[in-house]
Amino acid sequence: MTTIMNQQYRLAARPVGTPKHSDWSFTSEAVREIADGEILVQTIYLSLDPAMRGWMNEGKSYIRPVAIDEVMRAGGIGKVIASKSPKFAVGDYVSGGTGVQKYWVGAANDKTAAFYKIDPRLAPLPKFLNALGMPGMTAYFGLLDVGQPKAGETVVVSGAAGAVGQTVGQVAKQKGCRVVGIAGGKDKCDFVVNELGFDACIDYKSGSVRDGLKEHCPNGVDVYFDNVGGEILDTVLTRINMKARIIICGAISQYNNTTPVKGPANYLSLLVNRARMEGIVVFDYAARYAEAVAEMGKWMAEGKFQTREDIVQGIETFPDTLMMLFDGKNFGKLILQVSPE
Amino acid sequence: MTTIMNQQYRLAARPVGTPKHSDWSFTSEAVREIADGEILVQTIYLSLDPAMRGWMNEGKSYIRPVAIDEVMRAGGIGKVIASKSPKFAVGDYVSGGTGVQKYWVGAANDKTAAFYKIDPRLAPLPKFLNALGMPGMTAYFGLLDVGQPKAGETVVVSGAAGAVGQTVGQVAKQKGCRVVGIAGGKDKCDFVVNELGFDACIDYKSGSVRDGLKEHCPNGVDVYFDNVGGEILDTVLTRINMKARIIICGAISQYNNTTPVKGPANYLSLLVNRARMEGIVVFDYAARYAEAVAEMGKWMAEGKFQTREDIVQGIETFPDTLMMLFDGKNFGKLILQVSPE
Repeated sequence: MTTIMNQQYRLAARPVGTPKHSDWSFTSEAVREIADGEILVQTIYLSLDPAMRGWMNEGKSYIRPVAIDEVMRAGGIGKVIASKSPKFAVGDYVSGGTGVQKYWVGAANDKTAAFYKIDPRLAPLPKFLNALGMPGMTAYFGLLDVGQPKAGETVVVSGAAGAVGQTVGQVAKQKGCRVVGIAGGKDKCDFVVNELGFDACIDYKSGSVRDGLKEHCPNGVDVYFDNVGGEILDTVLTRINMKARIIICGAISQYNNTTPVKGPANYLSLLVNRARMEGIVVFDYAARYAEAVAEMGKWMAEGKFQTREDIVQGIETFPDTLMMLFDGKNFGKLILQVSPE
Repeated sequence: MTTIMNQQYRLAARPVGTPKHSDWSFTSEAVREIADGEILVQTIYLSLDPAMRGWMNEGKSYIRPVAIDEVMRAGGIGKVIASKSPKFAVGDYVSGGTGVQKYWVGAANDKTAAFYKIDPRLAPLPKFLNALGMPGMTAYFGLLDVGQPKAGETVVVSGAAGAVGQTVGQVAKQKGCRVVGIAGGKDKCDFVVNELGFDACIDYKSGSVRDGLKEHCPNGVDVYFDNVGGEILDTVLTRINMKARIIICGAISQYNNTTPVKGPANYLSLLVNRARMEGIVVFDYAARYAEAVAEMGKWMAEGKFQTREDIVQGIETFPDTLMMLFDGKNFGKLILQVSPE
């Protein structure tokens, strides 16, 4: 039988600040035979997410850190190419924790990988890493469950052209809100307004976010979905309304800091406005993902809901491709394609 | 007829950092005759509160700033000594916005002063500026409505020996919580544990708050009522539990800053723990004060609820007495007595 060679990115060292090439090791090994109850999955697409930077750090978080020499954690879409489990058949497409590697082998019911079947007739595969995957679930439940927007309210979202931001804005539009994005660059801003139907978008690279909020949120900000932290969070805090809700989803501006995270100096605006700042972790909503997929799937089928992916080719580009996130270079959900469909 | 001379502290300049004597003017003027519908109130006790520092600044807040040359805003307890209104009779004790002055004159139904009668048989007058007044209402509704503590949970409160902190801790005890205070100095810590029945108190002046939290909150922190901001808020953020609630009531450590407020660098703990940080302003609960007075009054009558006031004599001490709050020198609710009872 043919030996299948795997390729894997492993964490070689815990990065200080921005991850360097030397923080990774690129390894190769033969894929072992599968045992009873196991499956072999060929990874097709990998989801590259800001949260991965956090998994590389030591310390208590919502999930354990990736260990040194361990294959880097990542969610992916793959195809079952061998199976000794009744749970999956050869040819099935699955979504789960493949890690940054070309092949995954293990128990079909592995709790960490948590594979589930996806139906490629419903949508192109990359969408299952975007609106129909973790970013979409994060956006949907963070906005609706934590943010509780009401029709007519103003919703602001940073990282608007990113995986989570795209969905936040479109869900808010479907719910009757005024939606203002914050993104870096004219192309991204044009995209969220012209393609996704946001009411406005503030280009933080070309002007003042404060002035943009004054102009585009004449009635203040009722809900702010924060993906970036830092100065932008602080600026939005000066424009919130009474009883505003701020969803803390991430802080991409702070993840590669070597100095302490910059806390929101204007947090006392929460007091003045009796407002709330609350964190969201998507795994809490696992039991309700189907609800979100059904509603967003319907909007997609009706042509009311778009998503955009930025697909980069080749597992060997992983260290550099990941950095696109932190430089704001990706345009849409960042995906690494490691095998053909 | 005898002319009654008023004495008043007026805001002379907006302070930069810590208020100086030159930021005040101490003025004297004859009290005018009252007209129909008006009352004359002799101020007995004035409530000195951290919030007063905020009222001295320009800028949008939950209440308009005190104007230059205006009598400094303050809540007080007084006695009606002349009345041309059916609403109040001579001899009535009232609570309301007297300002920092010996006499208040104006319409009995003045919206800003918002006087209401208090019953001196229920409790000693100073209690009406403490647990039965604004600090008590702030503590009661902030803890119960925003914090939503459940029996068995751990509640931490900073400024534990202060006006708000005393009540927060005792209400939480009545609701079946484990209560840990944070206060400055052994006397204050002994007081909240031995007199008020807190389970423990961390002296931030004599040791590490982090170590104290580890020792006294072995099951983490479910509710944190923050009166101080700064380093203490940041430290508590490292010890919160999943779905913790942080009530932002004040930030006394930051009010005299000349540099920008220090935001909570550990705010991403809200994300990791799916926790919430929310502001409270007591005026929102005005329609429900009676509810709180009834419940706390009952506990007082049953001997289950103590309060402590720190009463300083003489209106002329106002500028220095106010500063006791920011130096942590008051021990209990700080009250200025400007006339005998």
